[in-house]
Amino acid sequence: MKRLLDSIEFPNDIKKLNASQLNRLALELRAFVLENVSKTGGHLASNLGVVELTLALHYCLDLPQDKIVWDVGHQAYIHKILTGRKNKFSSLRQLDGISGFPKPNESEYDAFTAGHSSTSISIALGLACARDMSGGKETIAAVIGDGSMTGGVAFEGLNNAGRSNRNLIVILNDNQMSISSNVGAISRHLGELRTEKRYLEAKDGVKKILSRLPAGEPVVNSIKRTKKRIKYMFVPGVIFEEMGFKYIGPVDGHNIEELIATLKRAKEIEGPVLIHVRTTKGKGYKYAESNPSEYHGVSAFDLKTGKPLKKGKLPSYSAVFGRTLERLAEKDDKIVAVSAAMCSGTGLTGFAEKYPKRFYDVGIADQHAVSFSGALAKGGYKPVFAVYSTFLQRGYDELMQDVCLQNLHVVFGVDRAGIVGNDGETHQGIYDLSYFAHMPNMTVMMPKNGAELEKMLEFAVEDMDSPCAVRYPRGEITDRYSENTNEIEYGKGEVLEEGENIAVINCGAVLDETSKAWEMLKADGYSPMLVNLRFAKPIDKELIRYVCSKCRYVFTVEDNVLEGGAGSMALAAMNDMGLLSETKFTSFAFPDRFIEQGSRGELFKRYGLDGESIYSEIKKRVENNG
Amino acid sequence: MKRLLDSIEFPNDIKKLNASQLNRLALELRAFVLENVSKTGGHLASNLGVVELTLALHYCLDLPQDKIVWDVGHQAYIHKILTGRKNKFSSLRQLDGISGFPKPNESEYDAFTAGHSSTSISIALGLACARDMSGGKETIAAVIGDGSMTGGVAFEGLNNAGRSNRNLIVILNDNQMSISSNVGAISRHLGELRTEKRYLEAKDGVKKILSRLPAGEPVVNSIKRTKKRIKYMFVPGVIFEEMGFKYIGPVDGHNIEELIATLKRAKEIEGPVLIHVRTTKGKGYKYAESNPSEYHGVSAFDLKTGKPLKKGKLPSYSAVFGRTLERLAEKDDKIVAVSAAMCSGTGLTGFAEKYPKRFYDVGIADQHAVSFSGALAKGGYKPVFAVYSTFLQRGYDELMQDVCLQNLHVVFGVDRAGIVGNDGETHQGIYDLSYFAHMPNMTVMMPKNGAELEKMLEFAVEDMDSPCAVRYPRGEITDRYSENTNEIEYGKGEVLEEGENIAVINCGAVLDETSKAWEMLKADGYSPMLVNLRFAKPIDKELIRYVCSKCRYVFTVEDNVLEGGAGSMALAAMNDMGLLSETKFTSFAFPDRFIEQGSRGELFKRYGLDGESIYSEIKKRVENNG
Repeated sequence: MKRLLDSIEFPNDIKKLNASQLNRLALELRAFVLENVSKTGGHLASNLGVVELTLALHYCLDLPQDKIVWDVGHQAYIHKILTGRKNKFSSLRQLDGISGFPKPNESEYDAFTAGHSSTSISIALGLACARDMSGGKETIAAVIGDGSMTGGVAFEGLNNAGRSNRNLIVILNDNQMSISSNVGAISRHLGELRTEKRYLEAKDGVKKILSRLPAGEPVVNSIKRTKKRIKYMFVPGVIFEEMGFKYIGPVDGHNIEELIATLKRAKEIEGPVLIHVRTTKGKGYKYAESNPSEYHGVSAFDLKTGKPLKKGKLPSYSAVFGRTLERLAEKDDKIVAVSAAMCSGTGLTGFAEKYPKRFYDVGIADQHAVSFSGALAKGGYKPVFAVYSTFLQRGYDELMQDVCLQNLHVVFGVDRAGIVGNDGETHQGIYDLSYFAHMPNMTVMMPKNGAELEKMLEFAVEDMDSPCAVRYPRGEITDRYSENTNEIEYGKGEVLEEGENIAVINCGAVLDETSKAWEMLKADGYSPMLVNLRFAKPIDKELIRYVCSKCRYVFTVEDNVLEGGAGSMALAAMNDMGLLSETKFTSFAFPDRFIEQGSRGELFKRYGLDGESIYSEIKKRVENNG
Repeated sequence: MKRLLDSIEFPNDIKKLNASQLNRLALELRAFVLENVSKTGGHLASNLGVVELTLALHYCLDLPQDKIVWDVGHQAYIHKILTGRKNKFSSLRQLDGISGFPKPNESEYDAFTAGHSSTSISIALGLACARDMSGGKETIAAVIGDGSMTGGVAFEGLNNAGRSNRNLIVILNDNQMSISSNVGAISRHLGELRTEKRYLEAKDGVKKILSRLPAGEPVVNSIKRTKKRIKYMFVPGVIFEEMGFKYIGPVDGHNIEELIATLKRAKEIEGPVLIHVRTTKGKGYKYAESNPSEYHGVSAFDLKTGKPLKKGKLPSYSAVFGRTLERLAEKDDKIVAVSAAMCSGTGLTGFAEKYPKRFYDVGIADQHAVSFSGALAKGGYKPVFAVYSTFLQRGYDELMQDVCLQNLHVVFGVDRAGIVGNDGETHQGIYDLSYFAHMPNMTVMMPKNGAELEKMLEFAVEDMDSPCAVRYPRGEITDRYSENTNEIEYGKGEVLEEGENIAVINCGAVLDETSKAWEMLKADGYSPMLVNLRFAKPIDKELIRYVCSKCRYVFTVEDNVLEGGAGSMALAAMNDMGLLSETKFTSFAFPDRFIEQGSRGELFKRYGLDGESIYSEIKKRVENNG
């Protein structure tokens, strides 16, 4: 039988299908996603969960005039397949391929770029206000997961949308699971809503009571006055109703007919509507259904067994971080770990199991995580907040105000620093050195390899008494220079290889690249120095003075943007010390633009940060005395 | 009659007082605050509103073992007066005086520093977790205003505290007013709660119904199952109850006895409690009561008339901004203004009155404001978000993701950039140049005077088509060099005074200082160049090359931190162009530490950024060839 999917290119194509065809198409879409993502890697479970929801949205809306704002964006694969990108889908998340997130410059069907969570309601409201000012009539829908709903900006959006009276549909995609376990009162509230039975019974009960009362009784008047509240009480979703939304649900998110009927109804309602849709994350793929967390984001895997295709020989930085923290926590009961829905991704699963009372998963709530950590430190504990570099951006202000300003000993395990690879622009961790650089009281360490991460984490937790970050990348550690790692000394870098005239200063986990460049220069007959900076903040001025005393050509290499990064701080230090009249300095870093998706290796190469490019550029500069 | 206040130094002192004495003390405290703040300036209305609440808290808690976390912190004056700082109170907000915000290093009675809003619940929860891990028993209370409650991180805190089951008291200080008008669904919810009557009637009504039903009826069973919901329905505060808090209220916040009884009751309750306290902002001072917004933050004023003591001759930058935006909006109906509860402070009052349909005050919700603005731009409008530099920090991530990443034409009117003066550490706007610097696609302008602000705002709104910030300080404009202001050209600075050997590069609103230094150098017989950079991003490389071609000694001056600021970007440009072997460069900026309170002039002087200090330092460096 010919695939239905083969005849579908754009949303209008599915409008001709009947319910049973739509169901068949759903099956085909799941197979298509599985087939592709098992090769490319990507966000699997969440996309398998929204197949019917996406079909229903495309069926009921008139895209691209109508707008769908996908919160966090990683669940838009089905939407992409159905909006002209089916044939490019094998390039998903690959260098120069299609993005794993919505992107207006990839398709007019993508209303807004998303990659970080919880902003969709704010964005939908902005689009709705623009529509109303322009006299437009289009439907605007935000699709937001229950995990994202715990992020503060989602609440800010709800609060503003709820009172706006504007036509706006928020679809709460409740898969009972954020990236890690979902937490908090909102989660419990949704849990109660899911068990519809209680509400139905209650509703029946009250109807019966009311019918038994004689008319004209004085109490009836008082009841009339409470009518609105009675309605709220037996309409589930009281929080959303109180916030000004009409609540519809819960709706079975895998029943296309029910979804279509609900969406049609929602489009008729004036004012903001919230549709509560229950979906199963990983739906239709048994491994993903039974372990949705593990199949949230996957690398290439074997469809039959569900197992990853390649397993690295070396552990990941996250694993080294987690295991080191467990070891430290054994001896120091003041150590507590904080996660914002990223327990497994940051390597904290073991810690959470061993020390459940010292582990706090606050859900998607990065701002809270930072302030909360500050208070734990104030209360005498040693909080370690393990967080992806890109998500810590959400807590920038709290980092400044609730940690640095009060000089509190919070340790930040900054995971996914540098290039994250296939998640692309929205997720690159290439700004943290720049935002840490101007935070007073902050100390920032950059391990060159796994062994140094261990030492630095221990130093951060046990020897420091002020705000402190250790930043390390996604993926496997390198074990170069891992034997006999020097002890960490506050604010001090190290010389890995003595030399003269040329110095390569390694800033963190770019050691494979810097040491390769060093080796190539060496092979060319130079005697280059290889230095490891260790601390991005404070900068080791003494070491820099020493390097400049021996070398005319000094180069830093980092996987951060140039502006405000480690090289930029090194340059300022050289200028301060009056070294620049004799020293030629160049900083290798990412340029001032958003860096696209692609593997770490591919992007390093494209931006001149791989060993060979560094070597060639250094050679050129030395030869031209530039 | 001797003042009661004279015998009060520490919280224990008030525990001996009876209710009528406490009421007398409340009157004395108001008089004391008024007397002092009318001289020092400060946050007036909010402090007058919490006199009884603070007394009740001090009466019921055992400070400093028990902890009060003051959200946003500006309402802690009474707390300060009652915790050993009465005699220093005349130094409030002055250089080296006591802070207008809680500060643990000022007093052990201050549990945590605050200055930005909405974090108190997260902090109280962190302190509560630390207490519980240590086996402590102390009471922990957060005091948060209804305005602050709309900030997303407050919701993150509520969500986590609500499910924690930890003992924790959140006092919602509902003065029906955030800094500007309070907005959103939460505000409406509180409004409903304030009108207790409806709830009482409803409660009575249901009681009567229930009492009329014969026992043993089948419906009774169904009612039993709905008991919890019925309770919620007739206990006001359903949102808070749903989020896991026991809700008590509303309580009259000016009735000390009622407050004490309520707090005593709350301390007995297991788990998180929210006490809803109604207060009147400005209570006891007629001008402040009738116009609390205007008396939120005041400069020195005449107690009798309520009028400010001195009125500047020149308009403020905020006023120039507001009036320019109004003028532009007349001709361009795509211009819309966004405020996050700072309508008056940012000069938007006139705009809001003239163009109510093009004005959006989103309440304290800075993240939402940024994402929402991004979507307005996406929808074809030209949103101008007027925001204090320090509060835009809260939207750092949204700025990066929802504006810069998608290259949307949102204009940021960055008010209170640079030194804000008496609000001190928590409010200094000295980081924005650093965080803008590493945001791709961002354009950043720094007007040298009021006339240039007008031109730059017009350029940002009418000539740009990408993210754009114009940053300007608090207070009066300067009118130096305001005649014949050059047209703005993208990325181009200007030479104000030609010269040689020495160049002073002015970065924004430090023109009084840089031109003074320039004049003093001139008077000394040098021929210094005076340059106005205009754009912090992009840096005008051509101009810098020209400056360096004529001058060996180049200096930038900015009211931002050194790290990642305009000088740091200029240095990188010089290094890029290979100019540093011949050029001696120094950046005048704030050092890498939090900058205390004090007037702009005092702090410029202390940190070597006043005209005279700049002159001396330049002279020294030129003479020593450094």
